[in-house]
Amino acid sequence: MTASEFAARRSALQQRMAAEKLDAFVVGVGPNVRYLTGFTGSNGVMVMLSGGAVFFTDPRYQIQAAQEVDCPVRVASGPLLLQVAALLRRVKSKRVGFEKSRMTVEAHQTLKDALPMRSSLEPTGGWIERQRMVKSDREIDAIRRSVELNSRAFEQVAGRVRPGMRESELAAELDYRVRRLGAEGPAFETIVAAGARTALPHARPTAAKLPARGFVLVDMGAMLEGYASDMTRMLFLGRPDTRAKLAYAAALEAQLAAIDAVRAGVEAQAVDRAARRVLAHHGFERAFVHSTGHGLGLEIHEPPRIGKKEKTALEKGMAVTIEPGVYLEGFGGVRIEDTVMVTATGCDVLTPTLKELRMV
Amino acid sequence: MTASEFAARRSALQQRMAAEKLDAFVVGVGPNVRYLTGFTGSNGVMVMLSGGAVFFTDPRYQIQAAQEVDCPVRVASGPLLLQVAALLRRVKSKRVGFEKSRMTVEAHQTLKDALPMRSSLEPTGGWIERQRMVKSDREIDAIRRSVELNSRAFEQVAGRVRPGMRESELAAELDYRVRRLGAEGPAFETIVAAGARTALPHARPTAAKLPARGFVLVDMGAMLEGYASDMTRMLFLGRPDTRAKLAYAAALEAQLAAIDAVRAGVEAQAVDRAARRVLAHHGFERAFVHSTGHGLGLEIHEPPRIGKKEKTALEKGMAVTIEPGVYLEGFGGVRIEDTVMVTATGCDVLTPTLKELRMV
Repeated sequence: MTASEFAARRSALQQRMAAEKLDAFVVGVGPNVRYLTGFTGSNGVMVMLSGGAVFFTDPRYQIQAAQEVDCPVRVASGPLLLQVAALLRRVKSKRVGFEKSRMTVEAHQTLKDALPMRSSLEPTGGWIERQRMVKSDREIDAIRRSVELNSRAFEQVAGRVRPGMRESELAAELDYRVRRLGAEGPAFETIVAAGARTALPHARPTAAKLPARGFVLVDMGAMLEGYASDMTRMLFLGRPDTRAKLAYAAALEAQLAAIDAVRAGVEAQAVDRAARRVLAHHGFERAFVHSTGHGLGLEIHEPPRIGKKEKTALEKGMAVTIEPGVYLEGFGGVRIEDTVMVTATGCDVLTPTLKELRMV
Repeated sequence: MTASEFAARRSALQQRMAAEKLDAFVVGVGPNVRYLTGFTGSNGVMVMLSGGAVFFTDPRYQIQAAQEVDCPVRVASGPLLLQVAALLRRVKSKRVGFEKSRMTVEAHQTLKDALPMRSSLEPTGGWIERQRMVKSDREIDAIRRSVELNSRAFEQVAGRVRPGMRESELAAELDYRVRRLGAEGPAFETIVAAGARTALPHARPTAAKLPARGFVLVDMGAMLEGYASDMTRMLFLGRPDTRAKLAYAAALEAQLAAIDAVRAGVEAQAVDRAARRVLAHHGFERAFVHSTGHGLGLEIHEPPRIGKKEKTALEKGMAVTIEPGVYLEGFGGVRIEDTVMVTATGCDVLTPTLKELRMV
């Protein structure tokens, strides 16, 4: 991202602050700080004032902050929130916004105790997440490259999957390829599950060996220049029986129906419903135990959720996953997942990997 | 860990609750839930009552929770804290403890709004972290194996480091070896920095190529069966000049002095002071910009901090890192780090890797 992009993001925050009559806004370290300043370290706080932003970090990040952050940087030892409070006292801030879903009760108390009586702390929710939902062209480009890298890594490994390999070994190969292709690393802990363990939507890879026959589920993503990708594909060792084929066909049909439903202006719940309707038709309504998808960007999970009762209207430039699944305890599970970019007339499926059930 | 170990940990929590007159205690997902129940998923809440614990999770983790958790499991869709509040209402809890450093302001508000007026939410700090500081024999064994695996992975790669390799490539090789040796993965984002970038204590690996001459800093850890290890070693490409040798010798002397100072009963700040005294003697007092070390276990950073003004007395069974450093902007940095286990008479240095400056 460029300095002007960070400045534009901060300016949008200032507009929101003005509308809500806040004269300061505190953002703790994490994806929102990265979004607003470019800082990638593990300790930092940004304070937005009407006159501009100030960034606080500790001495470990002095050099890094000077390189990454394009607003004034103050380096301080000890709790950063006390430095923040000192600044807010100096500029006589009255209404100070904070992020209620990110600030802990303890941090809130620390800040409150250090501010004068005339200052109030005002809880806010999802302001920056709302901004982050719609991606800029540069962000779309970053996500696209992350998706493509991830698919290349999968291709480099998929053809070498064999019975007897351990789940953890396969996960290690995938992670290695993601790194070697230039990503910072996996976007989340790579899921590899085989046989009946595919029925666990969030299985961690174990030392179990891949069976001679059965599903292998791979759910993986890359983090490239700070942006996530996310894909799930199924392999089948040996020849699938009828039940496996039916489960796969139903999941694929549901996934395609959900993709078909994506379009700017549509509510997220309508996309979720499209997937559920297909699965219900195949008798798998109760076998689909999670939402159809989620936004992604600087975080692997971010708004909007593509789920039941989710009324957020999709907008051009949102990046979301579409990943319905069928989970049958004791038998196994199927999930098929792409990363797609919402457009005015539909969506752009970024994931290039084929979706036929791949037999190995 | 065994079921009886989890039960003993929960029983210790119940004793603390009784002493503080709490009739319920809420623990959100993360290392504390893992410590008390064994659950490794990403969404779950444990509620401790005087009669025992109840664990809540969502349908994605139904099967996994049944396998991992040895107390009653309730699977619920929607916000888990609403289910928690319903339980607390049913059992008429009056004083409900929560963890102020882990609960967000938003979660606190959700819980508060869903509880009756007669119930109060009582902030607590560090109860479970305090329990976790002193490791059981099984935990010590897990940390020792994590440390040894991590050192083996480093040895498999260290001899192959050459000028022209990219920092990110070296990091990828290290992570791959950690996985292949059976770890869940790296315990944190592996740090590889070369040349002047070694002066950044928390450098992320970049695409920069290792120079023909200069320091390479590797800071890496494994996560094995949930337990972290942490080690930093320096390599030198080519022949070090006098300044590099002096910086290395000073950091090593400081590290050995700090290790010498570790013993049950000693305050953490005394260990930090031992390192600082040596560095000051060499004129590097201001070049050491962080604490001397930190506890580790289920998290890569946990109490006690081995730093200035830290009065926690070390106890037998604590696992801590000892990692002083010398950072010279524009020139480079040196850090040497071991994981050690506090004993009654000193400490057991778990890290087997040699500490001579390795020239490659």
